[in-house]
Amino acid sequence: MRKVSSKYTVSIHYDRRLYEQDIKGSIAHARMLSKQNIITNNDMDIIVQGLETIQGEIENQTFPWLDSLEDIHMNIEKRLFDLIGESAGRLHTARSRNDQVALDIRMYTKDATKDILLGIDEVRSAVMEIAERNIETILPGYTHLQRAQPVSLAHHLMAYFQMFSRDFQRFTQVYRNADVMPLGSGALAGLPYDLDREFVAEQLGFTSISLNSMDAVSDRDFLLDFQSATSICMMHLSRLSEELIIWSSDEFGFVRISEEYTTSSSIMPQKHNPDFAELARGKTSRVFGNLISLLTMLKGLPMTYNRDLQEDKEGFFDSYDTLSETLEVFSGMLPNLVIDSERMLSAARNSYLLATDVADYLVAKGLPFREAYINVSELTNYAIDNNKFLHELKLEEFKRFSTHFEDDVFEVTVESSVAARNTKGGTAFEQVRQSISEAKNKLLNDWKQIP
Amino acid sequence: MRKVSSKYTVSIHYDRRLYEQDIKGSIAHARMLSKQNIITNNDMDIIVQGLETIQGEIENQTFPWLDSLEDIHMNIEKRLFDLIGESAGRLHTARSRNDQVALDIRMYTKDATKDILLGIDEVRSAVMEIAERNIETILPGYTHLQRAQPVSLAHHLMAYFQMFSRDFQRFTQVYRNADVMPLGSGALAGLPYDLDREFVAEQLGFTSISLNSMDAVSDRDFLLDFQSATSICMMHLSRLSEELIIWSSDEFGFVRISEEYTTSSSIMPQKHNPDFAELARGKTSRVFGNLISLLTMLKGLPMTYNRDLQEDKEGFFDSYDTLSETLEVFSGMLPNLVIDSERMLSAARNSYLLATDVADYLVAKGLPFREAYINVSELTNYAIDNNKFLHELKLEEFKRFSTHFEDDVFEVTVESSVAARNTKGGTAFEQVRQSISEAKNKLLNDWKQIP
Amino acid sequence: MRKVSSKYTVSIHYDRRLYEQDIKGSIAHARMLSKQNIITNNDMDIIVQGLETIQGEIENQTFPWLDSLEDIHMNIEKRLFDLIGESAGRLHTARSRNDQVALDIRMYTKDATKDILLGIDEVRSAVMEIAERNIETILPGYTHLQRAQPVSLAHHLMAYFQMFSRDFQRFTQVYRNADVMPLGSGALAGLPYDLDREFVAEQLGFTSISLNSMDAVSDRDFLLDFQSATSICMMHLSRLSEELIIWSSDEFGFVRISEEYTTSSSIMPQKHNPDFAELARGKTSRVFGNLISLLTMLKGLPMTYNRDLQEDKEGFFDSYDTLSETLEVFSGMLPNLVIDSERMLSAARNSYLLATDVADYLVAKGLPFREAYINVSELTNYAIDNNKFLHELKLEEFKRFSTHFEDDVFEVTVESSVAARNTKGGTAFEQVRQSISEAKNKLLNDWKQIP
Amino acid sequence: MRKVSSKYTVSIHYDRRLYEQDIKGSIAHARMLSKQNIITNNDMDIIVQGLETIQGEIENQTFPWLDSLEDIHMNIEKRLFDLIGESAGRLHTARSRNDQVALDIRMYTKDATKDILLGIDEVRSAVMEIAERNIETILPGYTHLQRAQPVSLAHHLMAYFQMFSRDFQRFTQVYRNADVMPLGSGALAGLPYDLDREFVAEQLGFTSISLNSMDAVSDRDFLLDFQSATSICMMHLSRLSEELIIWSSDEFGFVRISEEYTTSSSIMPQKHNPDFAELARGKTSRVFGNLISLLTMLKGLPMTYNRDLQEDKEGFFDSYDTLSETLEVFSGMLPNLVIDSERMLSAARNSYLLATDVADYLVAKGLPFREAYINVSELTNYAIDNNKFLHELKLEEFKRFSTHFEDDVFEVTVESSVAARNTKGGTAFEQVRQSISEAKNKLLNDWKQIP
Repeated sequence: MRKVSSKYTVSIHYDRRLYEQDIKGSIAHARMLSKQNIITNNDMDIIVQGLETIQGEIENQTFPWLDSLEDIHMNIEKRLFDLIGESAGRLHTARSRNDQVALDIRMYTKDATKDILLGIDEVRSAVMEIAERNIETILPGYTHLQRAQPVSLAHHLMAYFQMFSRDFQRFTQVYRNADVMPLGSGALAGLPYDLDREFVAEQLGFTSISLNSMDAVSDRDFLLDFQSATSICMMHLSRLSEELIIWSSDEFGFVRISEEYTTSSSIMPQKHNPDFAELARGKTSRVFGNLISLLTMLKGLPMTYNRDLQEDKEGFFDSYDTLSETLEVFSGMLPNLVIDSERMLSAARNSYLLATDVADYLVAKGLPFREAYINVSELTNYAIDNNKFLHELKLEEFKRFSTHFEDDVFEVTVESSVAARNTKGGTAFEQVRQSISEAKNKLLNDWKQIP
Repeated sequence: MRKVSSKYTVSIHYDRRLYEQDIKGSIAHARMLSKQNIITNNDMDIIVQGLETIQGEIENQTFPWLDSLEDIHMNIEKRLFDLIGESAGRLHTARSRNDQVALDIRMYTKDATKDILLGIDEVRSAVMEIAERNIETILPGYTHLQRAQPVSLAHHLMAYFQMFSRDFQRFTQVYRNADVMPLGSGALAGLPYDLDREFVAEQLGFTSISLNSMDAVSDRDFLLDFQSATSICMMHLSRLSEELIIWSSDEFGFVRISEEYTTSSSIMPQKHNPDFAELARGKTSRVFGNLISLLTMLKGLPMTYNRDLQEDKEGFFDSYDTLSETLEVFSGMLPNLVIDSERMLSAARNSYLLATDVADYLVAKGLPFREAYINVSELTNYAIDNNKFLHELKLEEFKRFSTHFEDDVFEVTVESSVAARNTKGGTAFEQVRQSISEAKNKLLNDWKQIP
Repeated sequence: MRKVSSKYTVSIHYDRRLYEQDIKGSIAHARMLSKQNIITNNDMDIIVQGLETIQGEIENQTFPWLDSLEDIHMNIEKRLFDLIGESAGRLHTARSRNDQVALDIRMYTKDATKDILLGIDEVRSAVMEIAERNIETILPGYTHLQRAQPVSLAHHLMAYFQMFSRDFQRFTQVYRNADVMPLGSGALAGLPYDLDREFVAEQLGFTSISLNSMDAVSDRDFLLDFQSATSICMMHLSRLSEELIIWSSDEFGFVRISEEYTTSSSIMPQKHNPDFAELARGKTSRVFGNLISLLTMLKGLPMTYNRDLQEDKEGFFDSYDTLSETLEVFSGMLPNLVIDSERMLSAARNSYLLATDVADYLVAKGLPFREAYINVSELTNYAIDNNKFLHELKLEEFKRFSTHFEDDVFEVTVESSVAARNTKGGTAFEQVRQSISEAKNKLLNDWKQIP
Repeated sequence: MRKVSSKYTVSIHYDRRLYEQDIKGSIAHARMLSKQNIITNNDMDIIVQGLETIQGEIENQTFPWLDSLEDIHMNIEKRLFDLIGESAGRLHTARSRNDQVALDIRMYTKDATKDILLGIDEVRSAVMEIAERNIETILPGYTHLQRAQPVSLAHHLMAYFQMFSRDFQRFTQVYRNADVMPLGSGALAGLPYDLDREFVAEQLGFTSISLNSMDAVSDRDFLLDFQSATSICMMHLSRLSEELIIWSSDEFGFVRISEEYTTSSSIMPQKHNPDFAELARGKTSRVFGNLISLLTMLKGLPMTYNRDLQEDKEGFFDSYDTLSETLEVFSGMLPNLVIDSERMLSAARNSYLLATDVADYLVAKGLPFREAYINVSELTNYAIDNNKFLHELKLEEFKRFSTHFEDDVFEVTVESSVAARNTKGGTAFEQVRQSISEAKNKLLNDWKQIP
């Protein structure tokens, strides 16, 4: 019984990830205490050296981890005492576990967020790069998974660029929300010392300090922001995965994912199972689960710190790892995608995608819109009944439905259809080129928002 | 069978809420078409007048709603045709249902967000106002629902001010994310007309236009942002509810919620069931459910519009209504809260909250921290064993545990403890006063971020 | 303010659905009170008549609903008083709102569950019926959305029969869990009267009574069971929807959903947007949301009744309606599905699905498995490189990879492959026929489990 | 890049838990193959010995785990080949990874479910045991966290016995749902061998075999059932945790949780932070997250196996561990709970809980209910205004509100109130004793449902 019980509260198997933040935070705290004459300069020096030794030990894997000490904080605390003796205790002056934990997790969130921003940028670059190579690749655009209108593949892909750019923006906001220094809040009420909290913030690269000690030790909003942003970004990656999976099917045959990102069996070499895309789609669910867990955990908690809050970290690390790895997978998988542009074009051509454009043709010839619309509707039905596509009809067949049809109806093509959609945000090659060019600037400028 | 089937796709019972946005959007579109010479000035005038008539009819409740027309768009479309005939059709030039729906829901989101911001401000004001009256009200601050340290009630309440201020910030960001004008994206590929999308944006008060037509018709990120922000804000309100419920119990007896916000039975008039707070806590769950629904719905969708997206609205309206009403409940309930400050103070006094302060006292007298700590630990145990609180002990009893104790140990009180925590964010009255003063400025300035 | 506040607690707009259960429950209660001599026979008669009048009024839509009375119970209570005067009050003897609500919602759950069971049966019948017509229709079976092995379409569809049969079983369990009569629990502690609870249970068709009054008024497990079963059943329907959507694409072209269940535009008549399947997939998310809401709402509640519990009903009604309507949609949509069996067969043939079967052929000829496997792997690669399917190769080409190949290798066909999988649960026509025959018996027998 | 990519698909760090099931399943499969003359007796013997060696190696921690082999199956497969050579390959005859994985996870689920059932029983026993000691301990029963009516503590606790008994029932159903043997389904279509699937089922203790191969390899309903049952059971434990946390507060002071299950600081020894109960409440959220993840993951998957399904296991293991450990915590924590029965009784007495009983007293004296009700309502208000509890009033004060009051009104006590609620399920000691006695029988009989 006792064994399980104590295991129940242990977090060292996951919170050891915070070691770097914990040590950095302690060093900044010690320096401030010394600066404010709360501890001596000498104590400060000893403490800082001890902490640096510990960091070295952890990174060289010589640190004596003790599972009996429940968490990263106790492990470091105990080791520091073993290394430097009594001075170690002075590090705890004017600090509580509650504000220390809040500090560590905020620092980690900032680091994680920067890493995610880098990952998003790699995926954005990859998307942009394939788009750039495929401006003139035409495929059917789909609604309801039904072919609807011809579009440039680059245009289709740049839709994801937009999504990932919103994700970049969203994580920029997460960064800002995490960028508040909570140390100095004590257990909950503040501390009876003359602290220089701004000095700690400055040392640790925070742009502001928390303004209410009770809020500071119980607030996990920034983790909710992180989980929410991660869920949305994974949802985008899941949508892209869904498309890659469908496009990889024999029936679509639009793309082939490279071998590193598919599995196959030697006896069925034609199978290119898109396992990585499927896993990305599947892993999206776990991130959603982490978001709902955190919300639910926080929902009914009275002020201030409650032990339930310990449950904030595992889901956070899991979501961070999942998104980080998935971004890395996509930034590797996308550049090696083999595009079957012939098959795409053929799918666009051998359809009735141009019906609307043919109606527009009649309108341009002077027919009222409604009449043009009815004529083309009848024309398309005729073509379907005769198992022909529109471009396979003869002029005389066209003329049966309107005398306004002339030879130039054959100039209505998927290419002309695409070219016609030439307003901002449209699929005309000119617009797509422009949007890629703007995207390049965006990639350069987005980072300027991060302090 | 057919009856259910058609009912399955119907949305008019909830999307009629979009009527105002739909009409405004159509008027702006008609004006742009006329400006660009795509329709005549005359047609435009007729269309605008027709639409204004319809708006009047809806607001005077004389509009002939038809359930057989599935949604708000078809209802208005049909009515416009009945009112103005052929010209009605021209309104659909260079517009698709897909970008029209995207426009309406973005406009509605912006309006809803502004309304939520007002609601948050009312609650922030209410919190600040009680705080202002209770700067010198002392109660125990809790961790783990155990009394931990004395704090100012104003300090406790201002923790919520911080939370709601983050909510304000978060909804400001939602507003920005929704503030992108999608019209001109067509069904998915853009439109073969010379449109002035910026003109439409300007008329409707948008600060930017969408940059990719495929993204524009399938993007619902701004609704996710709304749902996420709503979930977090409701979580804050749920935590406050939890505290009000606990504080209203006979055992705590810290507050009494006014009659309008409680229920009772005539035979048990002593019961003050905090139904509104309980409902707020309960309703938080439904908002979480709406968030997870939307994420799940979007997760596996290929580009571009899929009918699944119709499911975006009901949960959105529900979350908006829930948060909006809950904010209104709190802004009414909080000002009338009866605070039992004597009971709070008594709870703070008749505890062992001052143990840490007594140890600090010994340190100030020159004892090393560790020794002071051990002495006070023994002292407290002695007091507990003798069923006394620390302030009930005699000096000679104090002295048994350390000779450093003097008469001035009785100056260590909950008041002195609170006063000592006088760094930024701490509970000292001075700090609390300062934070309320800053909060007032914040209330004035936060709105400046909204365009 | 007051207006919103009171609106906040109102539930009459959705709980009026409980009117029939509420009245039935009250009649049973009145009869028991009279039988136990707690009220007079005369009072009982007057009460029962009054309640029957009310039921008539509600069903004839002449009932004077008052929104100022918050819920269905108050509306009926008030109306009963207006109709029969003082006797109305005696109905409340030995009953509390808490156990009354618990009774009503349990009765409703039992009714709803029976309705769902009927709906599942209609869908199971529809599945079985198409299966029966398509035993010999062969299509590729997929893993990873990649063609893997030829299967009977009936076999594929009967996989869903299994899923829906588990759903039937699950809802049978929900029925049992709801089938516990809570009246007699009072507000929370039981009642100081000599009640005959078994008599009430018997009248209302319950098979057992609740055993702990505090549990009885706060237990909503049966609604969680309902929400969980509904989520799983909707997940199955969502998977089937996903397949119908993919199969309806131009690229697959395996099925055409009938016009009643698709939308199109007159100018693009070739588009068969599978809106109903998409909505079913989308609506699955809202049911998941309802499940998580209910769990979250219940998570932190202390004993016994808390007003949060009022939030149990809307999500329940929503999930019930959603599943009920979706089942109705599928039972209408499935029978009219047009199957393109030629295209299915062609997809199965023009693939490399038979590689495994060809290896088995070599093993049957005496080759060790591993060697056969390697030979066929090389053979398939050769075929792919030469743009041929296996059945398009000549015997001499086969022989290049193993001398064991004979003319009878051409007898390895999709048909022979299917026929070979002739163990229980396999796709051989014989097995599929058997499974359909067993399914018919199951349909007859499953209902016997419901009391 | 490649490193992350390959890591993305790796599951060996968690699926090694399946080793025992994997080996048992393989042994049963080998025996069946030999019995059916598909492999030789000799091969079977060699395979079984090899697998037993591997099991020994794993359990003695001498097994050479290779992370480069992605999962448990490949690790065992490779090791078997190293140990026994060519024969190892024959184990894969008539088996696919898809049905092998389905088998392993079903076997594990059955084992996990039995373990959970044991854990539930320990908690039920613990609850029953405290209940038995506290039949005559009276405390206030609460609604809305407001004191409502006096109840027996045993009655209160036995409400949880009911909940956990439903959990037991629910997991019994999970066991049955998992108890279906899928081997013989192959990759998806069945297998071209004469298999004896019933023989495999019998060896492995399954009571039935799967009936459709496509369903068998893609079905994870039994895991959903497990996750749902786990969520509900954790919700019950969370409610109990909430009560223990509230009851442990200084203000309630009803219970003291023993030191092993609380934390404290040496300087604040009066704090008994109920960390284990808080963590149980917090961990409930992660289980909810796991449930929603699995539902979401499955929602849009077409037939049959998709790699997304790999994501089924981590959440399952996590939920299993969480519930298992939480049950263990409660079965240790509950028996050592220190009950302050005096404080409970005093809370029940020093309230107005008896108002209803006093009204009943007047009714018994012949007053019409309504009149009695009004009189007592006035009486209670009078008492409150005079800061007295009802039992502190003098008879003459009672008489001011009704002349029917006599000396025997002082016989209306919390004890008489409890005693009066003497119908099945009520709180009278007699009923509670009876319910504990029935519970004991239930504990003995519930296991008989498990095969």
